[in-house]
Amino acid sequence: MPKLQSFPVEQLHGFVVRVFERMGLPPGDAVQAADILVAADRRGIDSHGIMRLKPYCELLRSGRANPRPNVRVIRETASTAAVDGDGGLGLVVGPRANAIAMAKADDAGSGWVTVRNSQHFGIAGYYVMAAADRGLIGWAMTNAAPQVAPAGGAAPMLGTNPIAVGFPAGAEPSVVIDMATSAVAFGKVVIAKRDGRPIPEGWVMDAAGRPTTDPAAALTGGALLPLGSTAERGYHKGYCLGALVDLLCGVLGGAAWGPFVLPFLVPQRINLGREVGRGIGHFFGALRIDGFMDPAEFRARIDDWCRTFRATPPAADVDSVLVPGDPERRAEADRSANGVPLAPAVVADLRIVSEQTGVPFE
Amino acid sequence: MPKLQSFPVEQLHGFVVRVFERMGLPPGDAVQAADILVAADRRGIDSHGIMRLKPYCELLRSGRANPRPNVRVIRETASTAAVDGDGGLGLVVGPRANAIAMAKADDAGSGWVTVRNSQHFGIAGYYVMAAADRGLIGWAMTNAAPQVAPAGGAAPMLGTNPIAVGFPAGAEPSVVIDMATSAVAFGKVVIAKRDGRPIPEGWVMDAAGRPTTDPAAALTGGALLPLGSTAERGYHKGYCLGALVDLLCGVLGGAAWGPFVLPFLVPQRINLGREVGRGIGHFFGALRIDGFMDPAEFRARIDDWCRTFRATPPAADVDSVLVPGDPERRAEADRSANGVPLAPAVVADLRIVSEQTGVPFE
Repeated sequence: MPKLQSFPVEQLHGFVVRVFERMGLPPGDAVQAADILVAADRRGIDSHGIMRLKPYCELLRSGRANPRPNVRVIRETASTAAVDGDGGLGLVVGPRANAIAMAKADDAGSGWVTVRNSQHFGIAGYYVMAAADRGLIGWAMTNAAPQVAPAGGAAPMLGTNPIAVGFPAGAEPSVVIDMATSAVAFGKVVIAKRDGRPIPEGWVMDAAGRPTTDPAAALTGGALLPLGSTAERGYHKGYCLGALVDLLCGVLGGAAWGPFVLPFLVPQRINLGREVGRGIGHFFGALRIDGFMDPAEFRARIDDWCRTFRATPPAADVDSVLVPGDPERRAEADRSANGVPLAPAVVADLRIVSEQTGVPFE
Repeated sequence: MPKLQSFPVEQLHGFVVRVFERMGLPPGDAVQAADILVAADRRGIDSHGIMRLKPYCELLRSGRANPRPNVRVIRETASTAAVDGDGGLGLVVGPRANAIAMAKADDAGSGWVTVRNSQHFGIAGYYVMAAADRGLIGWAMTNAAPQVAPAGGAAPMLGTNPIAVGFPAGAEPSVVIDMATSAVAFGKVVIAKRDGRPIPEGWVMDAAGRPTTDPAAALTGGALLPLGSTAERGYHKGYCLGALVDLLCGVLGGAAWGPFVLPFLVPQRINLGREVGRGIGHFFGALRIDGFMDPAEFRARIDDWCRTFRATPPAADVDSVLVPGDPERRAEADRSANGVPLAPAVVADLRIVSEQTGVPFE
């Protein structure tokens, strides 16, 4: 593989801020949206980072995303709220809804917020890290367009529907769980197809619902498999997790759900037969530690837990056992020092965005 | 396999109530505990049902479980509480904590309760069905003694740590998610060893951390694998889920966590080096629907979701796609009509309990 060109995180962040401003976002929202987008690149989750800037711009340019949404609470109790995102970017709507969850936690001990009428919100981990930085246990989920088959099914019905939960620590960094509920990320299948490599069994099925190692089959009528991969290994559990996210974000949130969630980027609105809700749905939560335990005691217990689990005897061929969030922190340290490597196709897209917006890229 | 003797659900329930009363539980608690225990047998989750009655009696007889616990709130906010179970049976402590979560949801929109100093609480699904029957979205988790290795580890560090969430529906039955976070239940490995059968790859590792198909290896120094089974298939996600449960129930709850959780039944207290908290920990939650959406609209949307997912084109060799909770409901219909089949060893145990307590079994 040829060496990729790398770009400093700050350069990418500044570029995204100016592009979003040019696309009509208020300056504060542009910075917030750039923070989330570039956090993905910094943490090594390239599929959710700056490679999505061009599609976001197309959503804004075509009018299918609202650059200045009126994000509003449509129902609430002391500890819960339902939010309408007014068709804004998830990168703008998500932080406002997350802030509502955190404010409710401050007042009532916990806060739980559904969101409808939003778009993709970047990496779920961003939101729970924001909560952990404030000393809260943060939760974030989102549904997405269907790519994953239910257990026993032969058609994509659920998104990769991530679940993220973050816990503040003491001397240790926060514990950050951020996981899709499919066996593997869609991006890995796309890359294997591009490189002409077969993929492991357990990742995808073909259009007839048969397991296959051909990445092309998954992209032409097939589907990703839920976490667990096979009946024998408990793929009904991955299905349950994907369903949980869809039921909270889509059904409870009042957004579209299951097979009725529109793809992230299509050239025009497509007709899925009927409309069951508005846009993408999210679910945010925040729990105040002192509602359960002295926060200093909790932070010491989390540190103890992290150190105990890192000290687990490793299996053969494994250096050491990690704690949730460690892999992304390693990427973050590397990329903060050495920049973010971008594929030539992504750089080409950013040059197009630069031309279209008049914001210099380099 | 010889045909097993079956017993009517009502007979088992009545027997358990009288045994628990004889062991010193107040009558109301004895009925509550029997409801949960026998719900497992009725729903086909035999490992959590009446086969545990004898061990529960031994816990009570030896003084390691408190038949009349003073279950009390030790911290609280409008929507959260920390509960001390006073060493009671989880079957008694769990419902009281779950009731606190539901009452807080009535008042504040949601309720979230940690529990320390408890014991095993039966099937997690029982608690979320109780919430769904009251029109709430219910959550229940518990940690347990270590049987599952973390991703990359070669020692058991986490319990099978189940996650349950239940959603009330309209004309459809409630959607009930209730899943362990390991690839497979420990009981299936025990049964394979008893029958002298190999087990599929992806279930367990041996004491050196190598995958194996020998069930005996898992029971002699090995461990269960987390959901996902291998690095390639995302077993770090199963590890994350098991960790989530341990962090909420154990670390936040103030109970023991990870490798320091005591086994369910040991002949005496064992020394795990140090004590990091008290007893088993649970986590309960309840969300009021009308904090997010009109409840009638929500129930109609859940029904729509269930019907849409059941209509997914099935894979080859699959009759139809199910909705979470369907398999247990099928078992419930069968066992309500035909009784609960019990293995001879379980019947023998119940006869011993009968002799010890003077409660007639048949």
